[in-house]
Amino acid sequence: MSLDVQILNALRGARDGAVSGADLSQKLHVSRAAVWARIEDLRSLGYDIEASPHRGYRLLGTPDVLHADDLLSRLGKTKVIGRDIRVFEETTSTNDVIEKLARDGVKEGVVVFAESQTRGRGRLGRKWTSPAKRGLWLSILLRPDLRPQDATRLTVASATALRRAIESQTGLKPDIKWPNDILIYGKKVAGILTEMSAELDHVKYVILGIGVDVNLSQGDFPPELRKVATSLKAELGKPVSRPELAVAVLRELDHDYARIASGQFATVADEWEEHGTTIGQEVTIRTGDRRIRGRAESLGEDGALLLRTEHGHLERIIGGDVTLEK
Amino acid sequence: MSLDVQILNALRGARDGAVSGADLSQKLHVSRAAVWARIEDLRSLGYDIEASPHRGYRLLGTPDVLHADDLLSRLGKTKVIGRDIRVFEETTSTNDVIEKLARDGVKEGVVVFAESQTRGRGRLGRKWTSPAKRGLWLSILLRPDLRPQDATRLTVASATALRRAIESQTGLKPDIKWPNDILIYGKKVAGILTEMSAELDHVKYVILGIGVDVNLSQGDFPPELRKVATSLKAELGKPVSRPELAVAVLRELDHDYARIASGQFATVADEWEEHGTTIGQEVTIRTGDRRIRGRAESLGEDGALLLRTEHGHLERIIGGDVTLEK
Repeated sequence: MSLDVQILNALRGARDGAVSGADLSQKLHVSRAAVWARIEDLRSLGYDIEASPHRGYRLLGTPDVLHADDLLSRLGKTKVIGRDIRVFEETTSTNDVIEKLARDGVKEGVVVFAESQTRGRGRLGRKWTSPAKRGLWLSILLRPDLRPQDATRLTVASATALRRAIESQTGLKPDIKWPNDILIYGKKVAGILTEMSAELDHVKYVILGIGVDVNLSQGDFPPELRKVATSLKAELGKPVSRPELAVAVLRELDHDYARIASGQFATVADEWEEHGTTIGQEVTIRTGDRRIRGRAESLGEDGALLLRTEHGHLERIIGGDVTLEK
Repeated sequence: MSLDVQILNALRGARDGAVSGADLSQKLHVSRAAVWARIEDLRSLGYDIEASPHRGYRLLGTPDVLHADDLLSRLGKTKVIGRDIRVFEETTSTNDVIEKLARDGVKEGVVVFAESQTRGRGRLGRKWTSPAKRGLWLSILLRPDLRPQDATRLTVASATALRRAIESQTGLKPDIKWPNDILIYGKKVAGILTEMSAELDHVKYVILGIGVDVNLSQGDFPPELRKVATSLKAELGKPVSRPELAVAVLRELDHDYARIASGQFATVADEWEEHGTTIGQEVTIRTGDRRIRGRAESLGEDGALLLRTEHGHLERIIGGDVTLEK
């Protein structure tokens, strides 16, 4: 654990809100001068830390920036996701960064955030707008014991986790649109891109890419998206703390990933169906060249959408663009 | 086309077997000295090229080395596979090289050979013995329009193509063991490793890795494999030309990849079933933690093995280790 994480942990855990420099120095086994230097550094990052000769240090406020040490300090212990967090000022796409880490053999659970992405992407290589410091753009490396056709379970679990995190931090009640969108009043506020490297019967690794439009203003979206996309700030009428939301997202993802890993996909699917806008609807799904129309019946045990077609067949759909029929 | 390819093409295409330096110089738009320099270079690689003052140049023999220009010259025009051929003296694994090319956006059809691999691998990360200049160790980049669960079709097509190439070059009659092995009298002589990068419903690229034990001697195999593996040389009693086999493999693969791409998987599957040792047999399949016993009935339209279990269910198996029950 880095010194910054330890200092932030100590400040957050202080019983009466303050910790003396002497206590910090003793607890962290470094000089008081070293503590002071780290505190100065945290201040320069925007942390509002009061230093009083009598009471010691007090954390009064944290900036709306993503700082790996701060996120680790807030997150605390998790099972898998977030054991290692890295924040980039700018990347092409956080999925690209994770892919490189995956090939280098890095363990599952590592999370990469970028304050901005120059080539953020959604499904099928579509562009994902990722303006600096307005959203959460993150990717997570997983190494699940799954067959490629079961990887949809991870998208389903991510959607339930993301929905809960947004609800807990904002009070908003998001819906889930199969397979990978989080909506508020029918407008997209977050998306999930699941990419994998696999042999035929065995996933080597999965990269979960997540984008949440947190504090974007209307002008941040390209004109063609303004009617179909929104942000948490726009819906709530005030900005949302990105570090707090980031930590909530990682914690909920860790919870749902553990549910999948321990064979409880059915409970995740039940929660998904409860909040899904797709089940029970007449829909048209475009997948590759095909256009399939039918009634979305339920989620299959692999995470696929079970669609009762016009001809009465039950089809398993593992991905595609869904349009609700009116 | 490189000068070497053009010279080899001209020598191979010469009507009376020989081409004069003057003709080559004129045809290739380079000086006679330049032609001579290339000929000397080809000789230094082991090409037996006769130069007679009256008749000109004649190709008498080619060495058993993999030379990209020579392979391109022999292969001629193909639809997709082998438009670009690269030969490495040594790599970790040819799949690794192709993966890098794939990420760099290289077009499908590029083929990478290595004379030896330091970390050749088979399914599930198993080691693949790849001694220098004794086999064909190659990988091919494909960008098919397939769903991840249909990628098994490519393994099936590769197996039929590889079987035909071996038969045409050696007269041996190999069998196919589902999903990825080529056998001669029950011993493994070649294998296919299919790896992919995908979104949930869409393959981004597939890497076909192929290993053929061409001229290995018994001592080249690790002791534990000597009873279950063999080489073409061991079965035939004499060495096989690796460049000729390499070209036959690429040509047959190109043919079967085109069959898949034009929707003729059923004809590939028919050919596969004709030479498969698995269909109609009682088998045990281990896939992940599961062990499934049953009768292999046929290939599904996605390339999966359709297994009638002991309990009468029909299961689709997309990969695993097959053991025939006696």
